[in-house]
Amino acid sequence: MAPPKNVNIAVIGTGGVGSVFLSQLAWIAKHTPSTHFSLCYIAMIDKALYHKDYSEIDIDTAVATMEATGSALPAIPAIIDYLAGAPHKVIMVDNTSSGAIAESYPAFLRRGISIVTPNKKAFSGSYQLWQDIFAAAQSGGSLVYHESSVGAGMPIISTMKDFVQTGDEVTKIEGVFSGTMSYLFNSFAPLRGTGSKWSDNVKKAKELGFTEPDPRDDLNGLDVARKVMILGRLAGLPIESPNSFPVQSLIPKELESAKSGDEFLQRLPEFDERMEEHKVAAQNAGKVVRFIGSIDMVSKHVKVGMEWFYPSDPIATLKGSDNIISFHTKRYGSMPLIVRGQGAGGDVTAMGVSGDLLKVLVQLG
Amino acid sequence: MAPPKNVNIAVIGTGGVGSVFLSQLAWIAKHTPSTHFSLCYIAMIDKALYHKDYSEIDIDTAVATMEATGSALPAIPAIIDYLAGAPHKVIMVDNTSSGAIAESYPAFLRRGISIVTPNKKAFSGSYQLWQDIFAAAQSGGSLVYHESSVGAGMPIISTMKDFVQTGDEVTKIEGVFSGTMSYLFNSFAPLRGTGSKWSDNVKKAKELGFTEPDPRDDLNGLDVARKVMILGRLAGLPIESPNSFPVQSLIPKELESAKSGDEFLQRLPEFDERMEEHKVAAQNAGKVVRFIGSIDMVSKHVKVGMEWFYPSDPIATLKGSDNIISFHTKRYGSMPLIVRGQGAGGDVTAMGVSGDLLKVLVQLG
Repeated sequence: MAPPKNVNIAVIGTGGVGSVFLSQLAWIAKHTPSTHFSLCYIAMIDKALYHKDYSEIDIDTAVATMEATGSALPAIPAIIDYLAGAPHKVIMVDNTSSGAIAESYPAFLRRGISIVTPNKKAFSGSYQLWQDIFAAAQSGGSLVYHESSVGAGMPIISTMKDFVQTGDEVTKIEGVFSGTMSYLFNSFAPLRGTGSKWSDNVKKAKELGFTEPDPRDDLNGLDVARKVMILGRLAGLPIESPNSFPVQSLIPKELESAKSGDEFLQRLPEFDERMEEHKVAAQNAGKVVRFIGSIDMVSKHVKVGMEWFYPSDPIATLKGSDNIISFHTKRYGSMPLIVRGQGAGGDVTAMGVSGDLLKVLVQLG
Repeated sequence: MAPPKNVNIAVIGTGGVGSVFLSQLAWIAKHTPSTHFSLCYIAMIDKALYHKDYSEIDIDTAVATMEATGSALPAIPAIIDYLAGAPHKVIMVDNTSSGAIAESYPAFLRRGISIVTPNKKAFSGSYQLWQDIFAAAQSGGSLVYHESSVGAGMPIISTMKDFVQTGDEVTKIEGVFSGTMSYLFNSFAPLRGTGSKWSDNVKKAKELGFTEPDPRDDLNGLDVARKVMILGRLAGLPIESPNSFPVQSLIPKELESAKSGDEFLQRLPEFDERMEEHKVAAQNAGKVVRFIGSIDMVSKHVKVGMEWFYPSDPIATLKGSDNIISFHTKRYGSMPLIVRGQGAGGDVTAMGVSGDLLKVLVQLG
């Protein structure tokens, strides 16, 4: 006898992360028959597929069917009404980076709809939104999991939660939170050799697909700031916004107004000397320069920017585009707990989402 | 109105890990009022405290009350009968390293009693016991969590489960799984300098409390073998026993029969030359020697022993008594996911147990 399917799943977003997530979801459905769920809603940027009777959508063919026969995308309140009326408990998987959907998380959660997402926006928006999200989850009896919002599939959020919920005291969190920044600084200021020119590195990183289409979207430090905010808030700091703490931008003032990423890249070599000075100053101190985020829970200082590290420091020895995050806690004492690995990319980001989904399923099922 | 207390908890073992766990449990009870549980049974080596009506035992005073008024320890079948008769679902927290209790896990689980434990024995005993445990959990509708059985509170078991349950393919696991071995090799073959004599290192490690009372219990490699077995089995290898794969012992044949740890330590310098040869051979290859466990999922080879690593390898750069575990998977590609930190000690081991308890509570509550 087939087990009853008693959780309904809605998936929003079928892009880089969303499409991989769907294939992982299909794998889970096939290999975990005791996991009771059925897909009842799927949506992309301008289309959605769902049935009034909440009948099951085949995961393998969902995207193709949606593209062929999907209806226009309902407004968010209509999606919430639809999902709140489902016969079973519902998990909404938001694989977008949409600010509008993030803003509506409290409305989903208040209606008992649980959320699993890699979307950073909800957790690094206003502190009011952060508070609303967790209050709505409590009042709605729903759950919200977001492992992939920091470090993709690496166990970062879950590790933070374990510290907080079992009563450990986090004293400091420090790390390289951006694959782009990791790649740029590991090749600009390597442990051995002199490295290449800053502007050449940025160009190469863009060619390799390691940067956003406009590299300034990485170099402004905001992606790192958002991740640091999320961990800081989980640790208990009521951080209001990315403007509440120092975030060093690597965009020269003179190039902020460049009209395009291409114009920016073209003029960047004019400013190589500034970055070179940083590198040489660090070298003269026997160190290397890296771009990090840090949260000092004792002094309550949060900051994002360039810092210098001794060659023996795990942050200095990072390679490729790896992320690294060190948790200093009372229980771990003088040596931090360190997690290192790929912190971006469709496969591992989707795995963080799938892992969260399984954790929510066993609580709802 | 206080929330209903609807999970009963039994705690066995009040030693190094158990006593810290109880203080973490008291913290959780105070700070997480939505977590519904009550302690109904507590036991140490020769005494137990419980009430026929399953009435709640105050966590803060449990050990003192047990020592003052506890009854004789019931036989394991009687404990299982008692717990299976509880008014609510039950979690048994086994903070011992008892083989007898481990052997009885299937009997607990079959009766619907969930288990949370750092006890390696159950998961590194016979493969039959391993299979019985998970079959019993399935038939009893109970859960078994054992994060602290490998790497104490570090996210190792949970990370492995995420890989397996979301359909990633683990290709290789490699690491330093023993704080004692880590300390010994980091100081015997440091990245800089020549290090000290092997026998001096072992003596110093014992003085610092980093070894078992008889250091041979660390040097035989079996502790590492047990941890490697657990990960290998989780990854899908049906490893029969620690005799099913090569485990290098660092106890010279001639000293296996030494009558005591002290006699062993006294004669160990006679064999320093052998270890020195290993170190020098590694140095001549531009590497350092470390004691590791590895699981190659492609060739299905498992082994424990000394290997050489380039100075830039994260395994070579380890410090103090830290553990490090690298997970190579299909999704992570050429750069592994790495977790590093303190892999032993009461505080962090108990934290792994407390974290598991919370994860089981939300599924049962």
